[in-house]
This record gives sequence, C-alpha cells and structure tokens, in this order.
Amino acid sequence: MLRLLTVLCCAAPLVWAADATRPNIVVVFCDDLGYGDLGCFGHPSIATPNLDQMAAEGQKWTEFYVAACVCTPSRAALQTGRYPIRNGMCSSKRRVLFPDSKGGLPASEVTIAEVLKSNGYATHAIGKWHLGHLPQYLPTSHGYDSYFGIPYSNDMDALASAPKGRAKFNDPKPEYFNVPLMRDEKIVERPANQHTITKRFTQEAVRLIRQEKGNPFFIYLAHNLPHVPLFVSENFTDVSHRGLYGDVIEEIDWSVGQILSTLRAEGLEENTLVVFTSDNGPWRVFRQQGGSSGLLRDGKGSTWEGGMREPTIFWWPGKVKPGVVMDMGSTLDLLPTFASISGSKAPADRTMDGYDLSPRLFGSGPSPRTEMYYYHGEECYAVRSGAFKAHFQTKTSYVGQKQAEVHDPPLLYHLGHDPGEEYNVAAHHADVIERLRGLKKRHEESVEAVENQLIRR
Amino acid sequence: MLRLLTVLCCAAPLVWAADATRPNIVVVFCDDLGYGDLGCFGHPSIATPNLDQMAAEGQKWTEFYVAACVCTPSRAALQTGRYPIRNGMCSSKRRVLFPDSKGGLPASEVTIAEVLKSNGYATHAIGKWHLGHLPQYLPTSHGYDSYFGIPYSNDMDALASAPKGRAKFNDPKPEYFNVPLMRDEKIVERPANQHTITKRFTQEAVRLIRQEKGNPFFIYLAHNLPHVPLFVSENFTDVSHRGLYGDVIEEIDWSVGQILSTLRAEGLEENTLVVFTSDNGPWRVFRQQGGSSGLLRDGKGSTWEGGMREPTIFWWPGKVKPGVVMDMGSTLDLLPTFASISGSKAPADRTMDGYDLSPRLFGSGPSPRTEMYYYHGEECYAVRSGAFKAHFQTKTSYVGQKQAEVHDPPLLYHLGHDPGEEYNVAAHHADVIERLRGLKKRHEESVEAVENQLIRR
Repeated sequence: MLRLLTVLCCAAPLVWAADATRPNIVVVFCDDLGYGDLGCFGHPSIATPNLDQMAAEGQKWTEFYVAACVCTPSRAALQTGRYPIRNGMCSSKRRVLFPDSKGGLPASEVTIAEVLKSNGYATHAIGKWHLGHLPQYLPTSHGYDSYFGIPYSNDMDALASAPKGRAKFNDPKPEYFNVPLMRDEKIVERPANQHTITKRFTQEAVRLIRQEKGNPFFIYLAHNLPHVPLFVSENFTDVSHRGLYGDVIEEIDWSVGQILSTLRAEGLEENTLVVFTSDNGPWRVFRQQGGSSGLLRDGKGSTWEGGMREPTIFWWPGKVKPGVVMDMGSTLDLLPTFASISGSKAPADRTMDGYDLSPRLFGSGPSPRTEMYYYHGEECYAVRSGAFKAHFQTKTSYVGQKQAEVHDPPLLYHLGHDPGEEYNVAAHHADVIERLRGLKKRHEESVEAVENQLIRR
Repeated sequence: MLRLLTVLCCAAPLVWAADATRPNIVVVFCDDLGYGDLGCFGHPSIATPNLDQMAAEGQKWTEFYVAACVCTPSRAALQTGRYPIRNGMCSSKRRVLFPDSKGGLPASEVTIAEVLKSNGYATHAIGKWHLGHLPQYLPTSHGYDSYFGIPYSNDMDALASAPKGRAKFNDPKPEYFNVPLMRDEKIVERPANQHTITKRFTQEAVRLIRQEKGNPFFIYLAHNLPHVPLFVSENFTDVSHRGLYGDVIEEIDWSVGQILSTLRAEGLEENTLVVFTSDNGPWRVFRQQGGSSGLLRDGKGSTWEGGMREPTIFWWPGKVKPGVVMDMGSTLDLLPTFASISGSKAPADRTMDGYDLSPRLFGSGPSPRTEMYYYHGEECYAVRSGAFKAHFQTKTSYVGQKQAEVHDPPLLYHLGHDPGEEYNVAAHHADVIERLRGLKKRHEESVEAVENQLIRR
C-alpha cells in the first residue's frame, strides 16, 4: 500500500505541503566561492547553466555581503543574524575553529533553525558546519533535527604522512585529510571520501526534501567545496574548461539543478524559497585552485570587496520578483527575512544586525540595509554606507602583508562608480568620512564583551 | 490609402520580409566597451536588462575576439574578415586614423556590405566608421547604401579653446569636440551634439528597419560611445549606480531594446540575426570614465585578454541555439558567417582569416576557429591555439611602459584554467610553445607587404 502511494505520488505529485504562510526554505552555501566564479557573475570558462537559470528566474543580488572574510565568523553571522563579535565567534589570533578547538557557537545564541523549529519547521543541516565540532556545538544542539557532514574545513586533520605544504593540494587524495564525516553526533566515515562528498550532500538534500514535503522544512546545505583540497565525483572529472576548480563548481551547479528539479517534481517550487551564496571570497593564494573575485579587489581573508561580497541568488517562482538587485543585503539578513516570511519569531532580547529583505524580494520596496561593517578578526576594518566605503585599516589576504595598514584619513571608495576599489576619493568627501567614522563608533559602542570562542583549546 | 496600409500593418504586422534564405542582419558595435561592463558579463553596478535578456534568449560568447586592440584596425578586420596587416590598416607608429589622415580602407578590399549587397541586401551604416573620412573611404564608397554618423572617434577635433588635457573629459561639453556628424558624404552638424548621439543613431536604425522590412537588410550600428568623452541624453542622466559611464552603457542597453522590440513589432525577429560586440577593451587610463575588463587582464591598447576579448551576444529566436558558448570566435568571422547564412559569396581571390560560425550558432557542431593572432600595430605579439596563449611580446596599455617587453621563451597561459593570465606555465609546456611559435611563423609568412594607410598624411 505504501509502495502504491509512492508510485501515485511520483506520477502526479500532490501539493500537500502548500502551507502558504510557512514556505519551505533551502539555503545553499558554498565555501570560498569567488564573486566572479559563476557564469551569471561573468566567469568565462566555468559553465553554470543551472545557477544561470536560477538567477534568470529569480533575483541576482550583486551587492550581497557576508559579515566576516573567513569561514567560522561568517557562518556564525548567517546562523544568528548577528555580527560574530557579539558572540565571541571571531578572533584576530585564530581566524577560525580548528580540530583542537574547545569552543563553538554558544548555546545562548539563537540560530535560524531554532527560530523556524519553534514555528513547526523540520530543520536539517548538511555539509560544513564549522561552528564547533564538540557535541554541544553541533547542529543537533543548535536547533537542527539532523546533521550530515564534515564539521569543519576539508583541509584540516592533514596527516603527517601526506605530502608537505601545498604539495598535498596539487594532487589531493582523500586519505591525506583525516576529516570526519558525521551523521548527527556520530562519526560515520573517517577520512571522509571527499570525491563523492558533493554528490552525497546533494542526495541527502533531495532525500530530505522528499521526506519532509508534508511539513514546512528548512534545509541548510553547506558544501565543503570549493575550499581546497578540491575533489569531484567521477561524473565531473575533467568536464570544465577551468580545470579541477571548474569541475568542482560545475558539480555544485549540478547539485543546485538537482535541488530545484526535485522541488519542481514534488510540486513545491511555488512554496519554497531557495537562497544560494557563499561564506567568503576566493582563497587566491591557492592560485588556479582558488577562485576569482571578478572585477572586485582581493579575496578571502581581506576586507576588500573580493573578500566579503558574494555571488547571491534568491529563487521562489511566482513570489520573488525576477531581476538584478543592486541593493545591499547580507547573510545577516537571512534570519530576520526567514522569520518574516514564515511568521516566526526572531529573538527580541538581544542586539540583532539583520534586516528583513522581503520588501525587495517581493518587489514592494527597497532593501532596508544601507550599511555594512567589515570585520577582520575582532576589528572593524571598514564601513560601507550607501555607495561609500571607508577603509580604516587594510590587510591583503594571506600573502605578503603581516601587519594591517592603518589609514587616517581612511581610504574612501564609491562602490557604485568604482566597484574594484581603485580610486580613493577621500580628498573630496570629508563629510562622508565623518559620517562613516560616526557610524563605526556607534556600532563599536554597541558591542558588549563576551568570551572568545576561537582561542579556547 | 498608403496611410490605411500603414495603420493596418502596425496593428497586425505582416511578415512580408520572410526571406528564409536571406535573413536580415544587424550588428551593434560599441567603442571601448569592457569585457566586464554588462550585467550578464558580471558587472555589479551597471544595469543592462535588455542585453541580459538578449543573452538569455540567444548565445553569450565568452571567448570572442577582435583582431586588434585599438579602433581602426579592429574595424577594418570586422568589415573585411582579414587581419588588418593584410590591407595596411594597422601601424605601430600611428595606432588609428586621425582627422589629418589621408588614408583609409582601400577600395580593393571587400566589405561585409559589399558581400551582402551583391546578393540583394539593403545595406546601411550608422555611427562610428573610422576607416577613412575622405569621400573615397566612407561607408557609401564601401558597399553601404547610406551612412549617418561621426566618421572617427568622438574625442578627435578637440578645440584649442577646450580645457587642457584630461580636464575636457571630466565635465565634457559637445562644443569642446568639433567632430562632424555626416549623412552619407555630407557634414550635417558640427560639432555633433553628442548628448543625443546614441538616441539619434538608435532612431535611425529603427527607421531603417521599418523602411527596409520588405528587403533583406544589413544594418551596421556602430555606437561612438562609451569612448570618452562620455555623453548621454536627458533620459539617461544620473540613472546608473556606476555614474556617467554606467549611464552611457544603460542608454546603449536601451538602444538594443529598441532594436529588438522593433524587430518583434515588425514580425522580423525570426528572420533576423543580431550580433552585439565591441571594437576593443576598455580605455582604463581614463579611470572611472573607462570601463572594466572584469577578471581579464589589462584593456584597450594591449594584447592581454582585456584588450581584445569582447562581451559578445548572438540573437536570432528559433535559430540561434540559446546558451553560453565557450568556443572561440572573432569579428573576423562575421563576414564568412553572414555570407554562409545568406548564400552570399565571400571573396575567393585573397587570403581570408575568418570562419563560418554557423555550425556553433545553430547547434550542429563546434566553432571552426581554433587560433587567434593578437596584433599590436603591425606586429603579432601573441598567439592563441586551443586553450594556450603565448605572449612573444607584451606592452601594458597606454600607461607606463614605453617599449614592448620581448619574451623568449614566450609567456604561456592556459586561458581556460587561468583566464586572468596570472600564472605563466611556459616551464611545463615546451611542446606547446614550439607549436605556437610555428603557427606564428606560418601566419607571418602568409602576410604580403602593402601600403600602410595609417601613416599617410
């Protein structure tokens, strides 16, 4: 009888999850994807037909930010809608969590999953977490019903027997990197076979969409790639003009296609918001194994635009008004936006840094976000307000520059006229600089001291 | 009666020009547009909805080249399907034609217009010509039934009374630049009111489409912009996040929308091939007044990719197979392609450098182009074959570098893996270098000495 039901459902999918007030939500989050790495964001030799189509049907946001230029703090911001300085999830001493870390996202923080779960959503996390790998910090301790993934970066736990330094990335093998693959709180495979990791994360997402189609659901699918070491499954070996890095992106593009076609097949596409973005800019020090920021300056690890502006797409047929959006948005805004569109309650007992983007998504008004603070570790290096961005400190990513350079007066760029941050216009806009300086001061005054989680070992 | 017919036709346009064997052809050619300046090629703050839509409906070519990194030789190549070294239209001493030039495209050359005209096409040139402004070199002497435009660059003929140096570009006024606007061989306005020039060129194109809809027609619409000085009409003043440069591109985007909607309104869209591209990379020395190459290196005046790879779109609903094309193509290929799709005769009595791209356009096979020679003046600085490009000489554009740097062994880049030409892989591919060296030698041996047209005064 169950089999018969399944057959019937597959033949003519029933829209039994049409809960108009609680749409499903899927976030696809990449790791170290560059602003310029998708076809629809201008890459000439990486083919991303599914993402291009998703952008054409939905909204392509060209000025969408993460709240930190490296992994752990960026992810903390997405989950909580708060700058990571507020919850101890950023550090100038240790940029991210490592396998020897004892810290993680504090239990007192409220995640997207908790917000939605309290409103009846099924919640699932897949892929990279990187907000603490000890049990009390895992997704299942932060509002997710299930977790399947590698709890930190895929280059961690490199074995002493692996080739030294960069050599292990040049012809990477899964056995060089002894990273665990977990199901909920248990390690189920170690080292994780990273060749099939994108495929398996995708299969898990597809399975969960089918499993949960009777409930409102939230799926957070955070690919471990294209962070180095780069791996693809057999079907995506040597498919891209861009080489191995392109193969990886093209497998992620395939994955997005699988998600969207599953939503369509299940009749859920008009009741599901899908968001695609990444955690920080490309890791350019890895050369051809790292991505490209397109015309933006620098990449991962810097507060130049290439480090923190992400290629972002919102998709919800019939609801999200198709087009290119040049308003500002941020992963900080996902929590309040999801709360808004689902009638869920965002935390009211703490400082939140996000905005509800739904007016812009649905075409009723502009994005309420008009400012962005660019963090490097625990310090706010730059501030954007409207089109202007002031850099009070700068540091190029990973290579060369050991100490940040302090700028007084700050460097000032008009990001509309000059998205590549080439032409400092500070000399002509003393008033703008004073305004940005004031914003920075007030923002910093709003930050309360908390225990740092990244330096705990 | 005529009025009645017009009304009837407008109400329900008749497809009276449905000549399936001789499709209409429109080429929209920009001046100094950067590879990264369109939304669909990744620009974050220039809105190009019409071009984005054109790309989505047609083919976006990501590896499409011009045959020279500056204006006059690039245009000679487009018109003739031959490297300009073959007809004296390139020079290392004078890069382009100037108002004091006595030379131009020789009468012995066969243009696209002549090829199509001999097969019954109506042929019209609008906009910038820059292949000689003396009567014997104008479009009407090279196979075009009519001409309406500025015969050379819009910054020429600057008056002595204009502000000095770059200052005249910062707040440009049409009266600073005493350029002529011509109708056929006559000057009809001087200085041309450049504020309305894009609008008037567009109106001329729309008028000609309507006028010629009973014939197969070829329209070559070569905008004088976004070459500096930048001008826009009133409707496009302060519309773009990118400032004046963006306003200019957004007016050109509007223009493309006008062309396509006119074709649709006249019922010609399924019988018209429209090609959009530009003559060379962005003039980066003009800073915010110049465009962006996106992730490509350098711009106008250099043989790095940013100087010669152009954002290119082919559109022909129902015929051109929609998608992103990563095969190579060139403006050199337009003449043979147009000849092929119209059953016209390309010249058979001379060396031609173009290929028929119709297999790739219509989805029956790959582009036949597998190589490209990158000219700087009269010298071939670089050669591409397949994914590899060897630079035998390099010179950055306009600024800084007075003498070309010779490379032996040449610099070698894999343009698929490394479209930004950052990582020289010469040390690993001696065989590829030898092959490219051989291609260059054979190509150069195919060139016969001719009179140089650019140094004649």
